[in-house]
Amino acid sequence: MADLVRFDVATEPRCPFALGRGALAELAQLESRYSSSFAVTDATVAKLHGQRIGLATRAHLLLPAGEAAKSFAHLEALLEAMARARLDRQSLVVAFGGGSIGDTAGLAAALYMRGIAVVQCPTTLLAMADSAIGGKTAIDLAAGKNLAGAFHSPIAVLADTDTLATLPAEQVASGLGEVLKCALLAGERELAFVEQHAESLRAGDSAALARAIEFCARLKASIVARDPRESGERKQLNLGHTFAHAIEHVAGYGRIPHGVAVGCGLALACAASERASTLADQELAARVRKILAHLGLCSSIAELEARYACTLDRAALVEAMALDKKNRSGVVRLVLPIAAGDVARDVFALPQDLRELLV
Amino acid sequence: MADLVRFDVATEPRCPFALGRGALAELAQLESRYSSSFAVTDATVAKLHGQRIGLATRAHLLLPAGEAAKSFAHLEALLEAMARARLDRQSLVVAFGGGSIGDTAGLAAALYMRGIAVVQCPTTLLAMADSAIGGKTAIDLAAGKNLAGAFHSPIAVLADTDTLATLPAEQVASGLGEVLKCALLAGERELAFVEQHAESLRAGDSAALARAIEFCARLKASIVARDPRESGERKQLNLGHTFAHAIEHVAGYGRIPHGVAVGCGLALACAASERASTLADQELAARVRKILAHLGLCSSIAELEARYACTLDRAALVEAMALDKKNRSGVVRLVLPIAAGDVARDVFALPQDLRELLV
Repeated sequence: MADLVRFDVATEPRCPFALGRGALAELAQLESRYSSSFAVTDATVAKLHGQRIGLATRAHLLLPAGEAAKSFAHLEALLEAMARARLDRQSLVVAFGGGSIGDTAGLAAALYMRGIAVVQCPTTLLAMADSAIGGKTAIDLAAGKNLAGAFHSPIAVLADTDTLATLPAEQVASGLGEVLKCALLAGERELAFVEQHAESLRAGDSAALARAIEFCARLKASIVARDPRESGERKQLNLGHTFAHAIEHVAGYGRIPHGVAVGCGLALACAASERASTLADQELAARVRKILAHLGLCSSIAELEARYACTLDRAALVEAMALDKKNRSGVVRLVLPIAAGDVARDVFALPQDLRELLV
Repeated sequence: MADLVRFDVATEPRCPFALGRGALAELAQLESRYSSSFAVTDATVAKLHGQRIGLATRAHLLLPAGEAAKSFAHLEALLEAMARARLDRQSLVVAFGGGSIGDTAGLAAALYMRGIAVVQCPTTLLAMADSAIGGKTAIDLAAGKNLAGAFHSPIAVLADTDTLATLPAEQVASGLGEVLKCALLAGERELAFVEQHAESLRAGDSAALARAIEFCARLKASIVARDPRESGERKQLNLGHTFAHAIEHVAGYGRIPHGVAVGCGLALACAASERASTLADQELAARVRKILAHLGLCSSIAELEARYACTLDRAALVEAMALDKKNRSGVVRLVLPIAAGDVARDVFALPQDLRELLV
């Protein structure tokens, strides 16, 4: 295990992060500290990677793949299955899959007996680079994505890059949307890395992906440690997300992958920043659009509509943005890029201005 | 408002508790600090006391009365209604009703956008004396009561004793089960008060009830402040509850009122304590049974079966106790009385011993 990248997310309690090939081999030792464990995954991950955690011989539940898992019905079914498996307060939940599995299993762990331990074992680029870190969990309401949830830090994150080998191109692209977001937040060095390695990242090159995951995870860990409850600094991680959540909501959850929507949201946030005169680096908007294209992602609503064969009603998008969790009293608040490594938080936006951006 | 009893529950953040006639008049001032508010109640409370909070002209949702409210379906409906009402992170949930309303509304507040503020406005003796204080929220699973929940402290508790005037005798008796539990935990002075005022408490005498609520609330506040997450001392508040939860589960939630089940649980805990040689005060078991009778409560499973016209399968009761949240690895742990004001926590019990107590 000497070749794993390791660092701690300094939450309370601290959360060790282990990244690299074979990281899942550490699960058994973690589990030995708990009275029992229960795994949550989906059928695809179970088939492709179940043997990595000995799934066949352990208590587990399969949820649907993707955003469909994040419903009240599946949360309830999971909690009932955990109760039938006799989990107690010293039991461990093993979230084994992408971001949706991590979100739903993490929330179930937060709620079961008012909170038991969870270990996040992300199997997608998006989950390794972003969602498995920091303790945010949630399911979706009809009214919007991630509207019901809890902060519940995992006891550890085991990001085994061996699981990325089977990831479909669409899922790689989705993860790269979050990677680009992190690069924009981290600074010029990381943005240049993504720019220069766009093709190999898109092709799923494991060395390039591991480097990207590492800088994303380190960035997120440092921000989350300083602001675990998203009262200030952590809000910057929502760059592009107000647009993305509206896109996913209007398209119908699961139709457009989260990271693809985030990618488009980054281009729209750059455009909004230009319009609000918040953008200091005048090249940034065009540069982001170019990187998005190289990563196989979209820069406009029209592009998304064409690729996913759907219509994204502009008025409905604006309406959905008004319900974003970051808003107060119906005024839309955006995180906007200023330059690589610099963002403005809590920038107010008017519905008519937003609508004009949604081309 | 000079005649209200006031003290703070020293949770983080602190939670002011106001008790007395007209306490609900303070709601308007509390609400002025929030961007919007949303009330949760049931049809009976709405009809009898809705005008006290101007329910007709405010955003609200009616849930079923009693334990039936504490389901996934109602939690989901409530969260969706909150989203349709456009609650944001600065909004306030007003939980207006008995313990089940407080539990469900409190959990919805804990989950909505990962946590917004809730003010608990209890309208029953049980909720004022116990459940509105301390931030425990939960709903029931098919596998057991309160198995899915969160710790979420209210921003304040407004216990308006005017609402107790309409409380049915069965609900008064139920509240008195928790009052007797608190008296047993608090000490000889409180136990003697309940013993000497059993008839007036049972008759709903407002002065006697207010005194009882005050000592219960102060006891709970002091324990919760020292152990908000129930890692040690707070467990004593579960006195009688392992039995009570099993009784409610086997009878079917809602059939036997919670406090009535707790009352019976106290008699069974005394019996278990005698059997385990944990009971120091040899008079206590008989004394508790006598007080229960004077309060209109039951001391045995057979008495409950007769009063509620149901059969409580003894094996099913033992089975349900094994799933109690306090247990580890299937071993049942009980809180047992030693004497007035003194309990033993984490006493192990064997299924066959439990079964013999359930007469």
